[in-house]
Amino acid sequence: MPKLILVRHGQSEWNLANRFTGWWDVDLTEKGVAEAKEAGRLMMEKGIEPTYSFTSFQTRAIKTLNLALEECNRLWIPTTKDWRLNERHYGGLTGLNKQEMRDKHGDEQVYIWRRSFDVPPPEMEPGSEFDLSTDPRYAGVAVPRCESLKLTIERVLPYWQDAIIPVLASGETVIISAHGNSLRALVKHLSNISDDEITGLEIPTGEPIIYDFDGDMQPGERYYLKDS
Amino acid sequence: MPKLILVRHGQSEWNLANRFTGWWDVDLTEKGVAEAKEAGRLMMEKGIEPTYSFTSFQTRAIKTLNLALEECNRLWIPTTKDWRLNERHYGGLTGLNKQEMRDKHGDEQVYIWRRSFDVPPPEMEPGSEFDLSTDPRYAGVAVPRCESLKLTIERVLPYWQDAIIPVLASGETVIISAHGNSLRALVKHLSNISDDEITGLEIPTGEPIIYDFDGDMQPGERYYLKDS
Repeated sequence: MPKLILVRHGQSEWNLANRFTGWWDVDLTEKGVAEAKEAGRLMMEKGIEPTYSFTSFQTRAIKTLNLALEECNRLWIPTTKDWRLNERHYGGLTGLNKQEMRDKHGDEQVYIWRRSFDVPPPEMEPGSEFDLSTDPRYAGVAVPRCESLKLTIERVLPYWQDAIIPVLASGETVIISAHGNSLRALVKHLSNISDDEITGLEIPTGEPIIYDFDGDMQPGERYYLKDS
Repeated sequence: MPKLILVRHGQSEWNLANRFTGWWDVDLTEKGVAEAKEAGRLMMEKGIEPTYSFTSFQTRAIKTLNLALEECNRLWIPTTKDWRLNERHYGGLTGLNKQEMRDKHGDEQVYIWRRSFDVPPPEMEPGSEFDLSTDPRYAGVAVPRCESLKLTIERVLPYWQDAIIPVLASGETVIISAHGNSLRALVKHLSNISDDEITGLEIPTGEPIIYDFDGDMQPGERYYLKDS
């Protein structure tokens, strides 16, 4: 039966520095590397062996995938990388320190930017040092200027339907290494979580989440691999 | 214009231990990791930016690719992994120490096994600890019991024609991270080297080799990236 493994990338340099990251490409910290390896070790221990992998265009998710797969001797499985699994685009907040933003704009405004379902953050200024619209990685992609969680979901779910479901339905054990908000999009869909609730749902880093599917491709309850 | 980058994996644990490796899956040494990163650094320095990657099913080649791509900020490019880029299968020699084999069978016999074009090594015994015919990695693949260089070429070249040429012809800069003998197969074909000569051609580890193609998909002279 098809099985889905979701892994949020390990701690990144900007998770540690408490900066809004979004599409900006930052590396894992040493702790993040250890979390990724631990995810792979746990899959090995539990006998959950991925046969197909998906990840985003962002180094922290790709490295998390590679480190986890190496740890469970599965580096050889197919990997598909796609920008639609990227983190939510934080627009003009990208690079800013979350505490400084709270000091400047107040807790409430920052809470809205981070946790509102459909209020996008301010747009990124063209020519910002964090503007990726001319990065060769995104050639042919309409790089957003900012995204709410709602907008993030609107590009994650079509990819789920068109690219990931067919692979799962063929009986594969699929691992997706991605980001807090692209994974929220999937968990909201698969666990049928309301708009209000999903914004508060934390996806822990490096902690494999499992969905088992039945023959009609209906997902069961989600659970953490460590608890299985 | 299409450009091809060939990289032989960095030093492996069994390169260092002087053992016949073939399809057995061994890791890179620290030196091998450094060689892989250096290949990526050199691509960055020379402004050679791969846009599509191929590698084998073997950890040492996949890790070499990932380390090199990370070093030149290109982890996000597509990667296709295929067993037809694997190392030559050393059959019953797999795992054996090359010096011990020389002591036992004589220099000449070992030279023939290593450097003959069409004489395969002894077949691997079924049930050998190095037998990979039931490894899930090779499900659906007729794992050879041994391969000469000639037999290696006979599975590399159809893959080159069917899978790699179409990507190159679309104008991509393709990197192939693979093995001494699967790369010999490609270099023999692209540089039109005779059966006798190719067996003595050494492909250095972690040293990018470049072919520039013209509009008719004819390769130019091969050169080392470091010399360009």
